[in-house]
Amino acid sequence: MWQLFQFPLCPFSRKVRLLLGEKGVGYELVRESPWQRRDEYVDLNPTGRTPIIRDAARDITLIDSAAICEYFEETVDAKPMISGTAANRAEIRRLVAWFDEQMYADVVAPLLDERMKKRLIHRAPPDGGTLRNAMRAANDHLDYIDYLLDHRSWIAGATLSLADLAAAAHLSVADYLGGVDWTGHEHAKGWYAGLKSRPSFRPLLSERMEVITPPKHYELLDF
Amino acid sequence: MWQLFQFPLCPFSRKVRLLLGEKGVGYELVRESPWQRRDEYVDLNPTGRTPIIRDAARDITLIDSAAICEYFEETVDAKPMISGTAANRAEIRRLVAWFDEQMYADVVAPLLDERMKKRLIHRAPPDGGTLRNAMRAANDHLDYIDYLLDHRSWIAGATLSLADLAAAAHLSVADYLGGVDWTGHEHAKGWYAGLKSRPSFRPLLSERMEVITPPKHYELLDF
Repeated sequence: MWQLFQFPLCPFSRKVRLLLGEKGVGYELVRESPWQRRDEYVDLNPTGRTPIIRDAARDITLIDSAAICEYFEETVDAKPMISGTAANRAEIRRLVAWFDEQMYADVVAPLLDERMKKRLIHRAPPDGGTLRNAMRAANDHLDYIDYLLDHRSWIAGATLSLADLAAAAHLSVADYLGGVDWTGHEHAKGWYAGLKSRPSFRPLLSERMEVITPPKHYELLDF
Repeated sequence: MWQLFQFPLCPFSRKVRLLLGEKGVGYELVRESPWQRRDEYVDLNPTGRTPIIRDAARDITLIDSAAICEYFEETVDAKPMISGTAANRAEIRRLVAWFDEQMYADVVAPLLDERMKKRLIHRAPPDGGTLRNAMRAANDHLDYIDYLLDHRSWIAGATLSLADLAAAAHLSVADYLGGVDWTGHEHAKGWYAGLKSRPSFRPLLSERMEVITPPKHYELLDF
């Protein structure tokens, strides 16, 4: 049985969970708080970050969310998520990297710092300026998603792909932390409503991080 | 004809160039200084980072160094660099991400900031503390490479892979900037000497960044 080491608001773990959900791969969750840098976890994964996925019986440990997604794309045929021509696949990977690096750095990491880590670890109030910048950046990222969806059915082209799952994973964490204002982003909102209703997404939406409560609209399909 | 947009000390461009060199793919270099955020470049690539590779005649633009490497791995059979079982391929991708994220953040980015950008852009002296930390981190990364090579022929396993090219790309930039002390790292040194002598590496080693001169040992096969 695969064990996924993660915490509920880790966007990279959410991306992997959406992929596993779409492909119908079963797994068990193991709670890991990477900021604690638990020795046994750092021994498994020198980066100390989440997620990793491990099958102890077969002694396989996969590290790095992109490498994990490529592994399941290669080994599980159901619901290909990095598909099409080589150029299509490059476009999917470009956009996954865009959300994992750019949206994470601009929006999700500062929200996690201000609204999760300061509360859970540092017991300090969030910084208003940092929050405002993150929310302004979230708005720019939604503009870009609107732009992509203006001439495509899905983020990276004609079919649902890992780029949609990555974008939704990051946005869902930002939304949980109250960082997303959907007003005026009709394309992005319609696309996200569609993703929210998928069976792969439902378990994520019903999960809660200790202490931190999401806004009312977070779990609603009509938001 | 492929055009690779890059600057001589971009480690991500070096990784792509090593892959293209190994596979025998021809390309032309286009100098791009990402810190200038040239409008035409940002129009092609919203991240503004290097490298991208473009075939104007076929109107293909590939963005993100990992996506570019996967593209050429998929489309050019010669010298596979992400090969083996799915688990081997995951290990190669894990290590590429390790060097691209961790070694870059700990070692290469601070060296580029202090020894390149401060000189070329800000006309300011480097910060000694930051340099010392980067060089200490370089030593830790060489220890990890020594450890990997202690029980493997190459970084990710029995054969040369993209993980070796990524590690060498980052180390070569750090070495150019005087950030690497090879003393006491015999495994890593022997491995790097072997890579330096490959035809794919020679053109990188003879190239120079304006104003900044590498240390004497940089280009030598016996260093």
